[in-house]
Amino acid sequence: LAEKDICILKSIAREVYSVTNPLLGTAESGRTVGLGFGEDETSFIDNVAEKAILNYLIQNKISCIFVGEEGGVQKLGEKPSFYLVTDAVDGTTNAIRGLRFASTSLAISLANDLGSVEAAVVMDLADGGIYEASRGEGAYYNSVKIKTSNTAVLDKAVLSVDVSRAPNSVNKIIPLVKAAKSVRSLGSAALEICQVASGRLDAFVDVRSRLRMIDIAAAMLIVKEAGGVILQPNGASFSNYPLTELNRFSVIASANKKIHNRIVSHILKL
Amino acid sequence: LAEKDICILKSIAREVYSVTNPLLGTAESGRTVGLGFGEDETSFIDNVAEKAILNYLIQNKISCIFVGEEGGVQKLGEKPSFYLVTDAVDGTTNAIRGLRFASTSLAISLANDLGSVEAAVVMDLADGGIYEASRGEGAYYNSVKIKTSNTAVLDKAVLSVDVSRAPNSVNKIIPLVKAAKSVRSLGSAALEICQVASGRLDAFVDVRSRLRMIDIAAAMLIVKEAGGVILQPNGASFSNYPLTELNRFSVIASANKKIHNRIVSHILKL
Repeated sequence: LAEKDICILKSIAREVYSVTNPLLGTAESGRTVGLGFGEDETSFIDNVAEKAILNYLIQNKISCIFVGEEGGVQKLGEKPSFYLVTDAVDGTTNAIRGLRFASTSLAISLANDLGSVEAAVVMDLADGGIYEASRGEGAYYNSVKIKTSNTAVLDKAVLSVDVSRAPNSVNKIIPLVKAAKSVRSLGSAALEICQVASGRLDAFVDVRSRLRMIDIAAAMLIVKEAGGVILQPNGASFSNYPLTELNRFSVIASANKKIHNRIVSHILKL
Repeated sequence: LAEKDICILKSIAREVYSVTNPLLGTAESGRTVGLGFGEDETSFIDNVAEKAILNYLIQNKISCIFVGEEGGVQKLGEKPSFYLVTDAVDGTTNAIRGLRFASTSLAISLANDLGSVEAAVVMDLADGGIYEASRGEGAYYNSVKIKTSNTAVLDKAVLSVDVSRAPNSVNKIIPLVKAAKSVRSLGSAALEICQVASGRLDAFVDVRSRLRMIDIAAAMLIVKEAGGVILQPNGASFSNYPLTELNRFSVIASANKKIHNRIVSHILKL
């Protein structure tokens, strides 16, 4: 079953790549076409990408509960056997600007629970690289097994943080930013969490209370299967959140428990 | 002359690409091999890249004053007719980690002055993309003319900032980070300034007083030729700094004068 799930997710990701890659950095890509799930503006490139996913599902007669940025929750076909949680383009601002760091995020869950994701694919839309995981079977980048880093101290850590469009979140992470070796901010949460999974980053930190389950569902499984830790800043997991409801989260994804604890202790509770 | 200069710089960049691209993200790339110009640690990938430049110059009997991260200032050949200012790998941490945002930075100047650069090439070491400029002849990305964005207000601006390894710089840019639409931190100053040149970013801000002329010499000409503004936070230009001396700078590279003034007004003088 898991292999079949991953196969479908990869096929969908390739469809998204083929329609979005030529649009990266074009003026057309950024045209606003509506408001999505959670009232984020959706742009032409988001719209095209989500349509590519829906078309694939319909043409291949795949029955599921679809959860997407623009279309929200939709029942497809007669006998849906799983939930498909998608962020067709994660990192839309980058994609529109032509900054080559954006992804498509796809997760399959058998239950209506963010903690129950079974299979996940995140594809880099700039180069087609594929991060994937099935529950209990490890995580892979372009078919090579990946694992998180052993970095245990902040002054050797390369961290990614996101403080965009959330002025109130900036002060919370100042001690963390000052303590880290290097700070990055790359602009696609799903792909940044996958960089933690592959050991390229030591952690991804977003304390804005803005990320939706569609942003993190796939990357969450990938980083866990690679040996990482992904929790809310208060230590809560992401179980027991229905995939069909809109919730917004703060997220800390870390390479290991040691660095995770150090990160948490450097975030101010404001 | 300018065309010949650019041709040499591109040939050198291709040499650097061919030896560094296979090393990106490998354990070997990060081995410390010494201290460079300005006492920054140099890693194996820096060493290999700078050697590739020097080998090219020697093999092609090009006489110049070479300025490099590891080797410092060297006279090559008998009758040097120009200064070649290089940062063989800009974004070494990214290159070692496998984060796909690093560059090689190459500039030719006829005089010993940072403000006199005549020809510049910055190559993206992940994909081989080439940013280039000759004084008075515009800037190009992969042979297509580029220009900076028209973004004039911060709440529509995508800015890149660097605060790594400089805790004292963090507080200075808090008002700016809070006012911007999106904040990025990508980890290669030369390549980030080129993103400003191509309109992908609206500004690059580094108030750490850490950048060396080898980091900015090439990108400075490219962003100016693309219509941008590059100055120190106090409004000073980069003229009248000898290429053969080590100075460290804070740098603000902006798409246009309007956004530049808004950025400067949001930086605290601490």
